[in-house]
Amino acid sequence: MLNIVVLGTGNLAKHLFQAFSKTDKAQVVQVVGRNQDQLQWFADSVSVSNDFSSILDADVYLVSVKDDAIAEVSQALSHKKGVVAHTSGAVPLYAIAAERKGVFYPLQTFTKGKTLDFSTIPICIEGNDNVTLGILEELAKSISEQVYQINSDQRKKLHLAAVFVNNFTNYLYGVGEAICMDSNLSFDLLKPLIMETAEKVQYLSPKEAQTGPARRGDQNSMQEHLKLLKDKKQIELYKLCSVAIEHIYEKEL
Amino acid sequence: MLNIVVLGTGNLAKHLFQAFSKTDKAQVVQVVGRNQDQLQWFADSVSVSNDFSSILDADVYLVSVKDDAIAEVSQALSHKKGVVAHTSGAVPLYAIAAERKGVFYPLQTFTKGKTLDFSTIPICIEGNDNVTLGILEELAKSISEQVYQINSDQRKKLHLAAVFVNNFTNYLYGVGEAICMDSNLSFDLLKPLIMETAEKVQYLSPKEAQTGPARRGDQNSMQEHLKLLKDKKQIELYKLCSVAIEHIYEKEL
Repeated sequence: MLNIVVLGTGNLAKHLFQAFSKTDKAQVVQVVGRNQDQLQWFADSVSVSNDFSSILDADVYLVSVKDDAIAEVSQALSHKKGVVAHTSGAVPLYAIAAERKGVFYPLQTFTKGKTLDFSTIPICIEGNDNVTLGILEELAKSISEQVYQINSDQRKKLHLAAVFVNNFTNYLYGVGEAICMDSNLSFDLLKPLIMETAEKVQYLSPKEAQTGPARRGDQNSMQEHLKLLKDKKQIELYKLCSVAIEHIYEKEL
Repeated sequence: MLNIVVLGTGNLAKHLFQAFSKTDKAQVVQVVGRNQDQLQWFADSVSVSNDFSSILDADVYLVSVKDDAIAEVSQALSHKKGVVAHTSGAVPLYAIAAERKGVFYPLQTFTKGKTLDFSTIPICIEGNDNVTLGILEELAKSISEQVYQINSDQRKKLHLAAVFVNNFTNYLYGVGEAICMDSNLSFDLLKPLIMETAEKVQYLSPKEAQTGPARRGDQNSMQEHLKLLKDKKQIELYKLCSVAIEHIYEKEL
């Protein structure tokens, strides 16, 4: 069984803690963080500390703090023999100050209070040597069936791709909601469509799944839509996405 | 039981036919269309015809053809006493040439060959009088628990909102896929995130669900991301969405 110390008390730290509590192949032996209030969340089930000089020995130290605090927190672990791994999509492996450096990046959006099934969440691992990688692989497989070994450059790109399909997609949902509200329509009307749009690309490529006026090169419908929009950013976005979609399919039309 | 004639043999016509075959409150008595090959799909289960002058009498005629053919097809029904309703998001009620004019618009994206649970699909109805509305409501409720009465102006806006949350969202999925492919990463990595992003707004508003660098006003991360992008349209899209998201939350930061 792998012993783990979690450093950090945020949303991801909590989700990881819950995931590890469900496997007998790994256990969290301590949670260390600055925020005494947040530590209380963990205190009933595990040893907690806000003293970064009294971190227990463990096989893996998971540094789940804000990106700009990773280097500093890892300093407190520089003398440890276990693997020190951060959980960020954007920070390079070499930000870690320890002999065994690693990354343990679960690619998902984590909502406070909503338990997720970790078995389907891709965990992207990286390590500065094979022993480190082997330990992180064992740890990742203890909670997920989707374990990928990727390097720091790939991880940066993946994080960028995630911004498009998660952050920007959510922004589009917000535009949809605003247009509905503007016409006294419930956002509920769009929810099944939002789910089905996401489900479709689970088995079709987005290129195959594309529909709509821009896909068909239907200039009339696009002009009609543009007339209905008042918000400048929405107009710009409509044009940009439509032109981009038309460009992808123009050879077929 | 309501008798229905379906006019049209496309994707939506097939999905509607399947949905009505599961209820005992409505039945399709005939499918009429020009395309003999497509009519074969229906021919084992129902009377079919490619002759628009021999349409059977029914309570409701569902005109499920391309937007620009609706007015013409409805001409063939102008003498009928039943409700003539089209199934389009964009065409006004008054495109229908019949005494009882209606709209029966299921708001969903329909994939060829994939059966959907109609009970959760919003059906937006409109009619030129209360009798027409009552018949369409009965018909909609026979297959869906989500029936909304909305007017033509609202429906246009709803269709526009659907373009944002469906067509443009799918385009963003494609950008994510392209970024992955460019770095030898499987698009599978993004699939759970795509699902969870859609699931989140089923119970949180998009404004509450928003995360990411733009949401946090994290200029460093955004600059790093822009450096990774080469495609001009992707760069423009990244800037546009980020500025728009920052704008929404700037008062909070």
